[in-house]
Amino acid sequence: MRESQLHEHIFAAAADLSGVFPHVLLGPGDDCAVVRTPSGDQVLLKVDQVVEGRHFTAQTPVDLIARKAIARAVSDIAAMAGEPRWGLASAVLPPAEARAEDLCDRLSFWARRFNCPLVGGDLATGMPGSPLSLSITVGGVPSPGRGPVTRDGARDEDELWVTGRIGSSLPSGRHLSFEPRIAEARFLADTLAGDLHAMIDISDGLGRDAGRLAARSRARIVIDADLVPLHTDAPDVLQACRDGEDYELLFAAAPGTMARAMAGWRFDIPCTRIGRVESGTGCLLRFRGQAIEAAGLGWDH
Amino acid sequence: MRESQLHEHIFAAAADLSGVFPHVLLGPGDDCAVVRTPSGDQVLLKVDQVVEGRHFTAQTPVDLIARKAIARAVSDIAAMAGEPRWGLASAVLPPAEARAEDLCDRLSFWARRFNCPLVGGDLATGMPGSPLSLSITVGGVPSPGRGPVTRDGARDEDELWVTGRIGSSLPSGRHLSFEPRIAEARFLADTLAGDLHAMIDISDGLGRDAGRLAARSRARIVIDADLVPLHTDAPDVLQACRDGEDYELLFAAAPGTMARAMAGWRFDIPCTRIGRVESGTGCLLRFRGQAIEAAGLGWDH
Repeated sequence: MRESQLHEHIFAAAADLSGVFPHVLLGPGDDCAVVRTPSGDQVLLKVDQVVEGRHFTAQTPVDLIARKAIARAVSDIAAMAGEPRWGLASAVLPPAEARAEDLCDRLSFWARRFNCPLVGGDLATGMPGSPLSLSITVGGVPSPGRGPVTRDGARDEDELWVTGRIGSSLPSGRHLSFEPRIAEARFLADTLAGDLHAMIDISDGLGRDAGRLAARSRARIVIDADLVPLHTDAPDVLQACRDGEDYELLFAAAPGTMARAMAGWRFDIPCTRIGRVESGTGCLLRFRGQAIEAAGLGWDH
Repeated sequence: MRESQLHEHIFAAAADLSGVFPHVLLGPGDDCAVVRTPSGDQVLLKVDQVVEGRHFTAQTPVDLIARKAIARAVSDIAAMAGEPRWGLASAVLPPAEARAEDLCDRLSFWARRFNCPLVGGDLATGMPGSPLSLSITVGGVPSPGRGPVTRDGARDEDELWVTGRIGSSLPSGRHLSFEPRIAEARFLADTLAGDLHAMIDISDGLGRDAGRLAARSRARIVIDADLVPLHTDAPDVLQACRDGEDYELLFAAAPGTMARAMAGWRFDIPCTRIGRVESGTGCLLRFRGQAIEAAGLGWDH
């Protein structure tokens, strides 16, 4: 069974969760879950992992392993237009791991830097042959004005936008040093409020993640390949849509509403309109006169 | 560096956390962390792991692996006299793990059973040779009347009590099928309120965990070995204090106050006075006329 099939199985099994546990406002299947506290506060929740050999190599410096581990989970808080508040870290260490103390220090450093200080953790030593793996849980608060921005709100005629540039994240090393788009997401939520319809971070590739946004919104997404902003070291747009690990935000906004956001955009990264939402299903990439099924571009990881 | 030394390093590095991040009410070093939401609700947070070869074997049925993974974290919520509300699970699976779907189903089952429905998760596939590992985060709410019960409140002249029986958890298989003492802890908090001074779960062994309670409370604990309630299959009290994996509650109550709790005790496990708190430091086990330093009994895992 592929991971994407297993995810569908898990999401289907959790479909009744909010009915059985009313404080669960949003269960598995979006960038974060949302639970309600007794007084009515909403808490965003995300767990994410990095595993040696999958997300970093045996040669990756401990500082960058720690940074990536924290930043990946924080990026999912950004995708809900939330702000991180606390974190928990667990690690399975190879036997006789000499870097354990350094790893803990760097996790603590990056968690504070990204405003999700580590309030707890667990260390376990694996058997011989175990790779280093880290699991990071981050909790956050949604935008007070907008609330959590989910994947399922895109509507016919919405504009589709992306922050930053994409492509070549792995060969360039940007997958280890990216900045989660917390401030940009918060600005968009504050400025657009209810006109910010849906958002996702594109960690698994623009094609695949746009397909997820389309599927959850029961809409069709059309991306114009010529408009996709690439890093200068990205060889071509199809590869860039497939690569993943960009950690930029893809979002759908009501038509015409992004003019007021762009008038106040003071970040040092671009924000670019790359397509639109239509009625229908699927995600198409228009490329040199062809229409490519984009949801198949990306990776299971 | 041993794990216990590494933990001390982490706790020391986190000593300023509540000063820098005022919503962090309690950071690393207790059974759970405590954070405050914007409206003032307190959230208990715990992450815990189980790793193949350490906490279960390659022969352990998936159902029991899932149960233990969830129950361990829930037991830490019990140790704060809290109630679980939600969970997050992450797993590193061996390549071509045929039990992945079954594992997800059983995690979901046990999480619901223990009232911490899984609202999110992450699956990663490890490299060849990777053991199965699971990391479980559980969030909970403290007792509304008592608030979180920490490890640091034991005082001179307090009585020391333990729930259930201890010993032989590993050979008997009880380490896979124990019931976290959520209801018992809540009853104690509701009944004793401010007279319930300190509590811990004894997953690492009665000796070691009593030593932790003593150290955090800056007090001395004296346990009478003849009073320690053993399972019938436990060969002797010293071994039982060393074994760990009991997941019972050890707590300090103001002198004389447990009479009113025991009058209403309707659980099918005993609750037994095993010692007292004194001024001083350390944790002694009185055994056949000897005084054994008990904090060294237990295990790093």
